[in-house]
Amino acid sequence: MIHPVILCGGSGTRLWPLSRKDYPKQFTRILGDETLFQSSLRRFTGKDFAAPVLMAHADFRFLAAEQAAGLGIAEAALLLEPEARNTAPAILSAALYLEARGAGAEVMIVAPSDHVIRDTDAFLAAVGAGAEAAAAGKLVTFGITPDRAETGYGYLEMTDAPAPGIVQPVRRFVEKPDAATAAGMLEAGTYLWNAGIFMFRADTLIAAFEAHAPAMLPPARAALAEARPDLGFLRLDAGAYADMPEDSIDYAIMEKAADVVAVPVSCGWSDLGAWDAVWREMGPDAAGVSLSGEVTQIGCRDALLRSEEDGPRVVGVNLDGIAVVAMRDAVLVADKSDLQAVKAAVTALKAEGAPEAETLPRTYRPWGWYETLALADRFQVKQIMVPPGKKLSLQSHHHRAEHWIVVKGTATVTIDDEVKLVTENESVYIPLGAIHRLENPGKVNLHLIEVQTGAYLGEDDIVRYEDIYNRA
Amino acid sequence: MIHPVILCGGSGTRLWPLSRKDYPKQFTRILGDETLFQSSLRRFTGKDFAAPVLMAHADFRFLAAEQAAGLGIAEAALLLEPEARNTAPAILSAALYLEARGAGAEVMIVAPSDHVIRDTDAFLAAVGAGAEAAAAGKLVTFGITPDRAETGYGYLEMTDAPAPGIVQPVRRFVEKPDAATAAGMLEAGTYLWNAGIFMFRADTLIAAFEAHAPAMLPPARAALAEARPDLGFLRLDAGAYADMPEDSIDYAIMEKAADVVAVPVSCGWSDLGAWDAVWREMGPDAAGVSLSGEVTQIGCRDALLRSEEDGPRVVGVNLDGIAVVAMRDAVLVADKSDLQAVKAAVTALKAEGAPEAETLPRTYRPWGWYETLALADRFQVKQIMVPPGKKLSLQSHHHRAEHWIVVKGTATVTIDDEVKLVTENESVYIPLGAIHRLENPGKVNLHLIEVQTGAYLGEDDIVRYEDIYNRA
Repeated sequence: MIHPVILCGGSGTRLWPLSRKDYPKQFTRILGDETLFQSSLRRFTGKDFAAPVLMAHADFRFLAAEQAAGLGIAEAALLLEPEARNTAPAILSAALYLEARGAGAEVMIVAPSDHVIRDTDAFLAAVGAGAEAAAAGKLVTFGITPDRAETGYGYLEMTDAPAPGIVQPVRRFVEKPDAATAAGMLEAGTYLWNAGIFMFRADTLIAAFEAHAPAMLPPARAALAEARPDLGFLRLDAGAYADMPEDSIDYAIMEKAADVVAVPVSCGWSDLGAWDAVWREMGPDAAGVSLSGEVTQIGCRDALLRSEEDGPRVVGVNLDGIAVVAMRDAVLVADKSDLQAVKAAVTALKAEGAPEAETLPRTYRPWGWYETLALADRFQVKQIMVPPGKKLSLQSHHHRAEHWIVVKGTATVTIDDEVKLVTENESVYIPLGAIHRLENPGKVNLHLIEVQTGAYLGEDDIVRYEDIYNRA
Repeated sequence: MIHPVILCGGSGTRLWPLSRKDYPKQFTRILGDETLFQSSLRRFTGKDFAAPVLMAHADFRFLAAEQAAGLGIAEAALLLEPEARNTAPAILSAALYLEARGAGAEVMIVAPSDHVIRDTDAFLAAVGAGAEAAAAGKLVTFGITPDRAETGYGYLEMTDAPAPGIVQPVRRFVEKPDAATAAGMLEAGTYLWNAGIFMFRADTLIAAFEAHAPAMLPPARAALAEARPDLGFLRLDAGAYADMPEDSIDYAIMEKAADVVAVPVSCGWSDLGAWDAVWREMGPDAAGVSLSGEVTQIGCRDALLRSEEDGPRVVGVNLDGIAVVAMRDAVLVADKSDLQAVKAAVTALKAEGAPEAETLPRTYRPWGWYETLALADRFQVKQIMVPPGKKLSLQSHHHRAEHWIVVKGTATVTIDDEVKLVTENESVYIPLGAIHRLENPGKVNLHLIEVQTGAYLGEDDIVRYEDIYNRA
């Protein structure tokens, strides 16, 4: 049995506006109906795999848990990183977690949750080859056979011309190259793309940390020893976790260790690192145009035109080399030849204090989500969705009254001492100051329209008396 | 006294998505706080001008009346064209209207309502010069001194090199030229841009129609004779109006008549014919970038980036020669070098059946406006605004119940036999089938959130029993 360790703590900004700090790309449906996180999980659900270990940032614990549950994966272990400190601390923590559960001599596979792999069969065949090498004590990486002179990836230089599925030693790791260097490496035929996927026995990796990054081990052991269970999550200790140097597994271990091998593979892999990668994976037409959502175009060439769910309709006219991604609250229009620059644009946006830099219109909570439909001086209209069995905190507000109209499903509403069922097309009024609670006792999603009136309508006007998600 | 005749029947699509069939550009705030229509009206409010005659399409009668009232112009005559048949029928109808009111020997000035004129003083000085020539029986046009080889305008070839303010004969009208011809005309110095603004005595124009387009006169006289007053509007007779050939005043009269003169003028005029004209009028910065609304850009050159009111934030990255106009429901991204192509894109959009081609999210009614905030299977949320004194029709619905929550102002609500006041933070419920009415009895705008539930939520599920706007 191989232990999958899925890294889902990342929060890059190069796929803004779809990917935001508050809702990173691995949890979005960027290609198809499943999220990238779900597709990553599904890859490791066969008979050769043990229950997965999910390394998630604490902010995304409910999102990760719900998306895993959506695939029918109930037995995943969810380890929470108190803060993002790159891959080395996360992977070491996962190895120590497996060791503590008696699986120290077993093989783990570490994979990001925000990449795409089109050919699962080819990938799993490579995993089979990698598992043998890992069981024999090697540190295994996966090298993608390059089909273009890509400057956006790191490379692995192999000792010999790589053959698919044949495990062989890595001579060295190569940083993202410039265009000429990339062309030279493609020509040479002895370089592979570094996919950032690894296999090793947990004890092999722990020993490699002892050899090459010994300072990591004591705080990593302490973070796990002091970890605190919370509603099925395991929160690694924040103080100890913060003592680990922030570093990638490549720098900390892989580039230093001697026993590193790679499995060459062609499996339709992409890291979806920027919008040009998404454009490519969407399958551009003969004119080089990739379209998604409510989009109309005339005369466009070499273009990406996307309107995300609930986004405005996009009309592209005679565009050449342009990427457009439209959402309800924000639209990106960028030169397609340098989509890495999107990161700088998001930084500029954040400096302006624009909420769109990091936040989506829809806010996810452990109990479901809400979205502001209209916000004006003295009133706000929200749509609220609560899945079956979920329950908001018992709360009150100092500055606003609320009207709730149930438009789908059934709610249990508590107002001070009264508890009542409210069903479709019924409404209740929550006076200012009343202690109230909303719950979905039914079997279908509850949708509610909330109309707030008051002088101050901020989210921080809330007093929580009780909360099943430990937020009170 | 000069009689201003303002043409506000146009509905071009080159400024989509801001300008739509249901809400054309003259009524939008495309530059500054006033609409183009209002700025056009204001130009003719001085002591030299009589009350204006507004030639409007019937669909925009309330919009034109409200925007005129917003300027404090209460005594405007509002003539309604039953259908758009270009400028000749509209201008002839206005001349006959003035003649019927005993002003046949007086001077009228005809101006579009969707152009911009930056230097009103220079323009009014030219109007003074034109008035003298018009009073003497000339057909007067206005010729703008060109400052670039523009291919988007028609030209006037003058007999001599034109001098500002000096009225002189027009040799011929020149169609929109190609770039080389435009450059040659700029070089020659004897050409002016045809601004589409005209002055003449009403009887001079009527005589010119008798001479050059006599078939227009009988139906035009009939359309006015059979005109029907309606709530302060004058509806020209549809049958007679449809008998007039669809033609422009340039083709029907100006290019044929002998006594045509022009007043040369430099007054910062633009017809705002496409987004590149708007870009120019917005005053691009040193890099050629014009910005409006919630827009962030890095590295852009020669670009137009606009986010209209309530539109998504626009982020432009390294764009060169691109125009972006974002609204809540639609985003245009187009090659800035051929913005005339926007028209073709709107035609494509319409062919797809996309409502955004012609309709705005906010729908204007004689009693105010409404806007859909959320629409889903079995429920819809609308924001409704009713100005003081306005009143919706007495109505009922077969398929939906409605919850109304007043969030600003005070409403008088009729439900079957009951009439009651509903004020801020109060709600009422309109059961399916109930006969109901909404009215603003107060002194401030009424804002209401309407939550509809039902199996069918179309606007056509309405039975009207009584309507102060004659729609029952």
